[in-house]
Formats: sequence, structure tokens, C-alpha cells
Amino acid sequence: MARSKSQATKKPQPVLQPRIRARIGSEIAIGPGKAELLELIRETGSIQESARRMRMSYMRAWKLLRTMNDCFHEPLVVAERGGKGGGGARLTATGHKVLTLYRRMEAQSLRATEKTWATFRTLLR
Amino acid sequence: MARSKSQATKKPQPVLQPRIRARIGSEIAIGPGKAELLELIRETGSIQESARRMRMSYMRAWKLLRTMNDCFHEPLVVAERGGKGGGGARLTATGHKVLTLYRRMEAQSLRATEKTWATFRTLLR
Repeated sequence: MARSKSQATKKPQPVLQPRIRARIGSEIAIGPGKAELLELIRETGSIQESARRMRMSYMRAWKLLRTMNDCFHEPLVVAERGGKGGGGARLTATGHKVLTLYRRMEAQSLRATEKTWATFRTLLR
Repeated sequence: MARSKSQATKKPQPVLQPRIRARIGSEIAIGPGKAELLELIRETGSIQESARRMRMSYMRAWKLLRTMNDCFHEPLVVAERGGKGGGGARLTATGHKVLTLYRRMEAQSLRATEKTWATFRTLLR
């Protein structure tokens, strides 16, 4: 589809991204990538499909999940083995809770910085 | 200095890190690394020394500064050429302002997420 000239030449607008991390020593219990992975698993029910959408290997996704599962009292994701395509995966109650609280912290952070960001933006080109 | 056993074996406490980024399209105008670089230049007055403390090459530090300078209306850092050690560098008024506003957004973000983080923490090992 042809883009109008104004669209093609429009300068991208500055955005503020509060990227939240929960860290235990050198381990990252959750951050933007792991949260996205949880969200995709919730949506697709598949580690493989989630990995594909994030353009990472299955092994990499699996390692991220293992790190997460190790950082919390309860696992966040359980794999359901067997069947075609390596079986499914689903978020546990803790997994749902973690994702909800994580997204809430992002939203709180964005809201809290709104006014300062408005000032900051005036300094940007 | 000898560490007491309790200190050596103590489990690290979870911490929340709101890593704030200002982004324009694919360019990151400022994020945790660039903010640290600004802070070190403010402190040391030297790009070379700041790069050394961040364990990066002078060239890498210089590129980060160029990106930052290009993203804002006014440069954040000006290099003072000549003299031994390649001359100094200092933050401009805009540089100081950007760093202050950035740290303020970090603090606001941390404060806003405090309660949710307290709940989140209970789920962590």
C-alpha cells in the first residue's frame, strides 16, 4: 500500500518506556522480555509459538521460563507434555498474578512520570 | 576484610529497577547507560575517565554522547579540546536539566510502584 508523503516523512514521536525489572542478585526474575513471553503463552498456549513470535529459539524461551519458575515460590508456567507440536503450556494462577502485577507497575510508573515527561519532551528535538 | 558468615551466605534481596527509556523511533535519547555516562561526566569532567569507569571504549562513549546530543535541541555535553589527556568535557545547562529530570522520573516511578511491588515481592522466593 502506498503511504502518503506526510506519513512517510513524519518524524516519529518521542515515547517514554518504563522498563521494569525485578532482580534477585544477578538473576532477573522478570523484565519486559519475560513479561512478553508470559503474555504470549497466556494467549497462544504454546511455548514454541510464543518463542517464534518473539524471534527466539525454543531453548532460549525455555531457559527464560526456567529462570522465572526458579525465582518464584510457585511456577508461573506449566508445560503440558505430549501431543503434536510438543504439547501446550499454560500460566498457573501465580503466573497470571505475576503478569497482572507487572503490567500494573508499568502503568503506575507511566502515570507517575507523566508530568515530568511532558517537561522532558520539550527538550527533545 | 573478612566477611562474617551471615553476610557471605545471606540471600540477596529482590529489588525493583525501573529502567526508564526515552525513545524517538529506533533511537534511544536516554536510558540507564546514557544517564550514568552523563552523571560520570558531571563528576569527572572527562569522557575518557567516564568511559573507563563504565568499562567501555572511548569511541563507544563518544557515540552515545553523539546520539544524545543529536536527540535534543541543545547539546548535553561539550568537549573542551586540547591540553593533556585530550581535554575535558562538561555538561551544558540542558545536560544538567536532562539528568535531573531523568533521575526524577526514576524516583517517581519507584515511589508509584511501591505498594504493588510489596505484593509482588511476596510471590518471589
